[in-house]
Amino acid sequence: MKRLAILGSTGSIGTQTLDVVRQHPQDFKVVAISAYGSEKDVELLVEQINEFKPKAVAVTLEKAAKDLSSVAAKNNCTVYHGEDSLVKVATLEEADTLVTAVVGSVGLVPTLEAIKAKKNIALANKETLVCAGSIVMREVKRHGVSLMPIDSEHSAIFQSLQGNRRQDVRRIILTCSGGPFREWTKEQIDQASREQALKHPTWNMGGKITVDSATLMNKGLEVIEAHWLFDIPYHQIGVVIHPQSIIHSMVEYIDGSIIAQLGVHDMRLPIKYALSYPSRLESGSYAFLDLVKTHQLTFYEPDLSRFPCLAYAYEAGTLGGTLPTVMNAANEVAVMEYFLNGKIKVGDIVKVVRHTMDSHKSSMIKNPKIEDIIRADRWAREHARSVLNVVLSDGWSRLGE
Amino acid sequence: MKRLAILGSTGSIGTQTLDVVRQHPQDFKVVAISAYGSEKDVELLVEQINEFKPKAVAVTLEKAAKDLSSVAAKNNCTVYHGEDSLVKVATLEEADTLVTAVVGSVGLVPTLEAIKAKKNIALANKETLVCAGSIVMREVKRHGVSLMPIDSEHSAIFQSLQGNRRQDVRRIILTCSGGPFREWTKEQIDQASREQALKHPTWNMGGKITVDSATLMNKGLEVIEAHWLFDIPYHQIGVVIHPQSIIHSMVEYIDGSIIAQLGVHDMRLPIKYALSYPSRLESGSYAFLDLVKTHQLTFYEPDLSRFPCLAYAYEAGTLGGTLPTVMNAANEVAVMEYFLNGKIKVGDIVKVVRHTMDSHKSSMIKNPKIEDIIRADRWAREHARSVLNVVLSDGWSRLGE
Repeated sequence: MKRLAILGSTGSIGTQTLDVVRQHPQDFKVVAISAYGSEKDVELLVEQINEFKPKAVAVTLEKAAKDLSSVAAKNNCTVYHGEDSLVKVATLEEADTLVTAVVGSVGLVPTLEAIKAKKNIALANKETLVCAGSIVMREVKRHGVSLMPIDSEHSAIFQSLQGNRRQDVRRIILTCSGGPFREWTKEQIDQASREQALKHPTWNMGGKITVDSATLMNKGLEVIEAHWLFDIPYHQIGVVIHPQSIIHSMVEYIDGSIIAQLGVHDMRLPIKYALSYPSRLESGSYAFLDLVKTHQLTFYEPDLSRFPCLAYAYEAGTLGGTLPTVMNAANEVAVMEYFLNGKIKVGDIVKVVRHTMDSHKSSMIKNPKIEDIIRADRWAREHARSVLNVVLSDGWSRLGE
Repeated sequence: MKRLAILGSTGSIGTQTLDVVRQHPQDFKVVAISAYGSEKDVELLVEQINEFKPKAVAVTLEKAAKDLSSVAAKNNCTVYHGEDSLVKVATLEEADTLVTAVVGSVGLVPTLEAIKAKKNIALANKETLVCAGSIVMREVKRHGVSLMPIDSEHSAIFQSLQGNRRQDVRRIILTCSGGPFREWTKEQIDQASREQALKHPTWNMGGKITVDSATLMNKGLEVIEAHWLFDIPYHQIGVVIHPQSIIHSMVEYIDGSIIAQLGVHDMRLPIKYALSYPSRLESGSYAFLDLVKTHQLTFYEPDLSRFPCLAYAYEAGTLGGTLPTVMNAANEVAVMEYFLNGKIKVGDIVKVVRHTMDSHKSSMIKNPKIEDIIRADRWAREHARSVLNVVLSDGWSRLGE
């Protein structure tokens, strides 16, 4: 039985992780959960505390901690709040495995602390590796813990590497649905709104990742994540557009064989695999793919001129240092604070990411420590905000663009 | 360095195996070769002896042995001939690995003898497992040798099983191009000729297997082969029509994941893998698949009413005993002695296989010894010949069909 701490238990991956626990009560026990603490979060946390009886719950907002105190007391559950509370939950003695299912770079520090506390990690938070891949992977090795990807693409790659020698790998091929703008012109994409970006053709996910999937920034973050997870250079990581999202990703070997993992669009599958590896856990009938019904799989080259964020990610990853952190932070601010609030268009996300990366290049740190990363992350957020605030009042022309 | 004996060195798989050796001279050495001994065989054997300098060569025909004697003497190569000569080559002391690349049940006895002589087996001859799967697999275990499949489908399954627990397998899914008659009506298929059957849409192979691919008997034989190779019940082996033949086969796991192996249509890839496993050997650029160029993969249900041979194979496999041997022998006679000589149509192959299976059922042996299998094989050949000779003179109506 694995004892899980779940960061982000009210989000898309968090609730699906709890569903996996619900289906396999003999395999998993939830010992800690966390959420930001919005009203909706609190409602859900109350249900989760009653159902799963965790030992601890963490919320960022103090008000949420107060709202939870009575249900927590009834269930012998300790409530933590504040910025540090995530670390408390991530390093809880009773847990052996941390599921990092929060969105954004807020997942980085608690995940690192959990690794140091010898917890195995199931990672749905790509920003952890995008921002601090070299540090995280070094600590994983040093403390002898496992780091399993929950992303469907990285889970597919992990599965496609099984039983093979690393030196026989020629290339990793990430598949990409192409998002809702796959067939749109560059002009149409630049003008696209929140509502248009949120219509993902194949996956049902949270808002941030859905928007990132529309700009292909999500695929770019996954390229960087793959680089760190599988210790493979960027020129050996390819992306192919595959609108049906049935092949979740592939590994090409030096002899010409490609091993691929296929499946339905259900994040419970990679969650399950990350938590049960090297075994697999039985699924209900919902989980099985009918290729005859699917009927057709197609493949296209990604178009970097219409989706420049994918190229930016390769650039940030290849240059390395603090640049991926800065790219990610600018994107996170643009998407979560502006785009999802309906303030800017898709073209503005692309532009502010580019602007922030360019402004950082002269001061980027090649081999950052965790403090350098946190500083670069903060700087990039402030920079992106100030750029976008100027743009909102005066347009991009004020910035000479 | 592996030291190879190759049964059937002048055939399609044999010559491609030699091409693999040619590309990887530091990994493989050919120590023995064999062929039937036609004029074309002798021509090719002379070249092969001069190039690869094997210690031994075997031919079935005595005349061929005489024709080879001078070139063999010049190269210090011993020439064997007659029925037994295949066993001599298969059990040659200098060899550590036998590549069984002959077509038909003639591969069975030498392969069994090689196993007993502790040679590892690379098996392109499906009849060996179709006819005597239980005996062959028992001997493989007993003598601690490895049996690697060369068929692209079984190689794909083998690769898709790597790093997984056998108890997590839910189903094996063999892909099938559908052959040249995929979209033909039953009436058109029944009337199809040699020339029509030999136009395979994706693979370039020998005549027998190309015809079997047109009737789907080839897929049926592969189902039985998969049953023995992977120790999996027939109800857990599925077939899906995939006209592009890019996914070579798949394994579905209990959690819903499907692992698949993809590649170009080049038998040197599975040959190479069978000989280099668990490593992989680098390939030239010919070997790499461009999914964007391939563009589209499609999938259909197989139609057993138009392709009854596939259903016959499931039936023969499930009932077991000597029935698969008999089905295979009747098919082999019908295809090689009649159909490829232009004497009968596709519909006649199907009918004589059915007739021979039905005539055998009352006397089939449930747990056959190797002698029972050889006897059943002979009986089925004679039965099929006598049925087809009646049909050729008087038509199927004489047999009440």
